[in-house]
Amino acid sequence: MAGEFDFINWIRAQSLKSDNLLVPPGDDLAVVKWKFDDLLLVGVDQVLDGVHFDSSIHTPRQIGKKVMNRNLSDCAAMACLPAYALATVALPRGRNIDYAKELYLGLREAGDAFDCPVIGGDTGSWDGKLVVTVTILGRSAGVKPITRAGAKVGDGIYVSGPLGGSILGRHLIFEPRVVLAREISARVSAMIDLSDGLSRDLLHICRESGVGAIIYADAIPVHEDAMALSQQDQRPPILHALHDGEDYELLYTASPTDNLPGTRIGTINAASEGILLQSEWHREPLDPLGWEHPL
Amino acid sequence: MAGEFDFINWIRAQSLKSDNLLVPPGDDLAVVKWKFDDLLLVGVDQVLDGVHFDSSIHTPRQIGKKVMNRNLSDCAAMACLPAYALATVALPRGRNIDYAKELYLGLREAGDAFDCPVIGGDTGSWDGKLVVTVTILGRSAGVKPITRAGAKVGDGIYVSGPLGGSILGRHLIFEPRVVLAREISARVSAMIDLSDGLSRDLLHICRESGVGAIIYADAIPVHEDAMALSQQDQRPPILHALHDGEDYELLYTASPTDNLPGTRIGTINAASEGILLQSEWHREPLDPLGWEHPL
Repeated sequence: MAGEFDFINWIRAQSLKSDNLLVPPGDDLAVVKWKFDDLLLVGVDQVLDGVHFDSSIHTPRQIGKKVMNRNLSDCAAMACLPAYALATVALPRGRNIDYAKELYLGLREAGDAFDCPVIGGDTGSWDGKLVVTVTILGRSAGVKPITRAGAKVGDGIYVSGPLGGSILGRHLIFEPRVVLAREISARVSAMIDLSDGLSRDLLHICRESGVGAIIYADAIPVHEDAMALSQQDQRPPILHALHDGEDYELLYTASPTDNLPGTRIGTINAASEGILLQSEWHREPLDPLGWEHPL
Repeated sequence: MAGEFDFINWIRAQSLKSDNLLVPPGDDLAVVKWKFDDLLLVGVDQVLDGVHFDSSIHTPRQIGKKVMNRNLSDCAAMACLPAYALATVALPRGRNIDYAKELYLGLREAGDAFDCPVIGGDTGSWDGKLVVTVTILGRSAGVKPITRAGAKVGDGIYVSGPLGGSILGRHLIFEPRVVLAREISARVSAMIDLSDGLSRDLLHICRESGVGAIIYADAIPVHEDAMALSQQDQRPPILHALHDGEDYELLYTASPTDNLPGTRIGTINAASEGILLQSEWHREPLDPLGWEHPL
């Protein structure tokens, strides 16, 4: 019967050599030569069967790709370059080594697009559902990391693409905005990737920056998926654009004199003004209705 | 209802400041200033309910502590110093925020013993069983990382403590051998921590080093837990010491002229000799019967 060590050996055979990877996967830890002037950025993100994907519908290749791309999108949010990834898989008994390989190939396919090899991991099978966790290491590579905390009163608020309705399939096949993030990094004051939904992720920026905001409903780019979903559930497309999660576009703030790529959707105000949505006829508080895992 | 962001806020209030932690938990990624002459070691390890612990018996504090200590033990195996950790939790619906806090406090208690703060993570609830994953970052701090690949013919084989029967409870409350590893690091040629069982972990060293080995059954320090377990299952204590997993002692090789701490249990031979167990009356191949997750 194929076991964990066969899988580890298979992964080792897949691994690319790297000058800075002194000890590759297969030992207790991987060993990396980190460059002096590069800040190290690190985070971790998991996907759970029935929450972030559905293993009865989605292929292991799609699932692996999604979790890696979520982590690469976190690199985009900080404007760093992805460097290395590690992955753990809790594999339901009955899923075989070929399934695990497909997961890994999905991870690798997404990582390869940004020269981000998988340098370690842990796989175990159990009487439970599929969990895939990825740790991402990024490097600043000459760009000061962009946090959520730098938005200033008077800054414009921008998004990198149309929003809403990602549940129709886009949540599996998005492209992490790493290249754009690097391009705009010198000009933005705060940034986040839209994983929890615009209303909630904007709240993160406002809280961390100690500011308020006004969003112009008419300015929000609404994805055609939000229109399609609206046909199904009768909920206005703008509500999908405001509150749906997993867009994986960037939300960023910058001085409005800069001519930034993306769509301007609002303005940063003083904290005392709150977070407001300006529609054609009225102005109302924009409450976060996006994704939050209840505990 | 308490949610993910309340938990994140609680964790942020717990976090210790560190001069080299430029962006603490709460943003998309943590930002660390890595020191130039320190190699970066990184790995990840998960624990699964029903496999590595039983959430109906073990407390969240115990579970958190165990998974952190497993990762710290990987640092010991490489002779590096733990630096930072990140954690993900897949929390069964019905477990509340207090349960998540207890898990975190267990992680932190174990990390604090080695000045290893938790600097990031991801928590989500789901209709599944508990999974806790820890990513560990270690630093070489002046010691060349010890891999599994350096054992030489003629080296002695050593273990740092008595083996077997950890399932009786020791698998939850072991102490990672980080201090010992640093102490012996200049003299050992290969090292691993005993998580899969002596017979299997020795095989890892032999394969990676391209050598064989002979182990003297009488020399193996047998833990009193192995004796107690033998009373229950009638299996000889030496078999528990040879094959049980989760001892979390160190297994290392070194020139026998060095007077190393620990107990010498054998000698490295040429690969062609295989891996042998020498008992009083006979010599036989030592097959790995330790822990392997089937896939």
